[in-house]
Amino acid sequence: MIDSQKPASAQDAEHHRTKMQKRKAVQDKEVASKTVEKGLLIVNTGAGKGKSTAAFGLALRMLGYGRRVVVIQFIKGAWHTGERKALERFEDLVEWHALGEGFTWETQDKARDIAACQGAWRVAQQALANPDVGLVILDELNIALRYDYLPMEQVLADIAARPESQHVAVTGRNAKEAMLEAADLVTEMTLVKHHFKAGVKAQEGIEF
Amino acid sequence: MIDSQKPASAQDAEHHRTKMQKRKAVQDKEVASKTVEKGLLIVNTGAGKGKSTAAFGLALRMLGYGRRVVVIQFIKGAWHTGERKALERFEDLVEWHALGEGFTWETQDKARDIAACQGAWRVAQQALANPDVGLVILDELNIALRYDYLPMEQVLADIAARPESQHVAVTGRNAKEAMLEAADLVTEMTLVKHHFKAGVKAQEGIEF
Repeated sequence: MIDSQKPASAQDAEHHRTKMQKRKAVQDKEVASKTVEKGLLIVNTGAGKGKSTAAFGLALRMLGYGRRVVVIQFIKGAWHTGERKALERFEDLVEWHALGEGFTWETQDKARDIAACQGAWRVAQQALANPDVGLVILDELNIALRYDYLPMEQVLADIAARPESQHVAVTGRNAKEAMLEAADLVTEMTLVKHHFKAGVKAQEGIEF
Repeated sequence: MIDSQKPASAQDAEHHRTKMQKRKAVQDKEVASKTVEKGLLIVNTGAGKGKSTAAFGLALRMLGYGRRVVVIQFIKGAWHTGERKALERFEDLVEWHALGEGFTWETQDKARDIAACQGAWRVAQQALANPDVGLVILDELNIALRYDYLPMEQVLADIAARPESQHVAVTGRNAKEAMLEAADLVTEMTLVKHHFKAGVKAQEGIEF
């Protein structure tokens, strides 16, 4: 009911307060209904930017709580220079394995790519078995799986068998259906507009 | 042409090599066509997770190159605890301003929210005028703009007038059309699957 005795601005403020109180009640109820704590399998996929970047943002968050992070790069060995340098400040907490040998169209040798992926997976298995590790980033794993450089069943079994509190972030476009099904959280990064279209080149601090 | 004298695996390897060589040629040509270097206006929007997280990942990348980063939080003052703690290791390079006072449904006072946003914008203006700053993160600015807590024209004018090499990352769902038009790079984070639906609660290192 509109109270005509009150000035419009006071009514507006009161309306806003009531609306926000309701919203807060909904929010509080929702928060209270969530009780499970567990390590999540997080998948960042899609053709847009930010898949790996968001995973490294998550690493930053974990590091803020002093939790250990292991990064395993499956494909683009030559990239992430910036993040890698920055994470050197956390050398007590971060382990970085760049086992991919650059983009696959750089190597042009399928057998070598498969061997590199298998080697990377053996390192991943160690991280996935270590309860001291809070977050394992399997960077561009989706690409390795898409090319069938690694068997999906093995990958999912090893991820499922990890310590209960450990989080795993899988990145790369074209995540396969089995990976999406196994995931707790899936975000698709959709490209809406890209500066490369306007002739802007890859720049330090943005693309690498 | 299939060479029947060769074993299948060798043909397969050769086919793969040829395909990847072509792809590399396309890639190299594309890279060579990009010549512009400039500060980008990056917008991460959408209902999915990872908008702010990807912006902090970008911060990490910039920090790896020793570039200065300023973070201004417009709305959710109480969050990002993990990132903030982690970035303390870069205190020489990072400035963090948490001027929002939590989610708006926590404060229930519109006038106070508007004043907080305006105060935050004054801090943003200083960062946007400083050529020593490589990246300005305007976290949840889209929310402040959506509620009309800040005038869009002023915001876009200040962003446009920044030093040429400075990057700006704007986050928050429901980015307005004018912001998308002004942006160089827009990514929409789309929610495909969320663990809250399965009763999992907000956890340290993941949500905050």
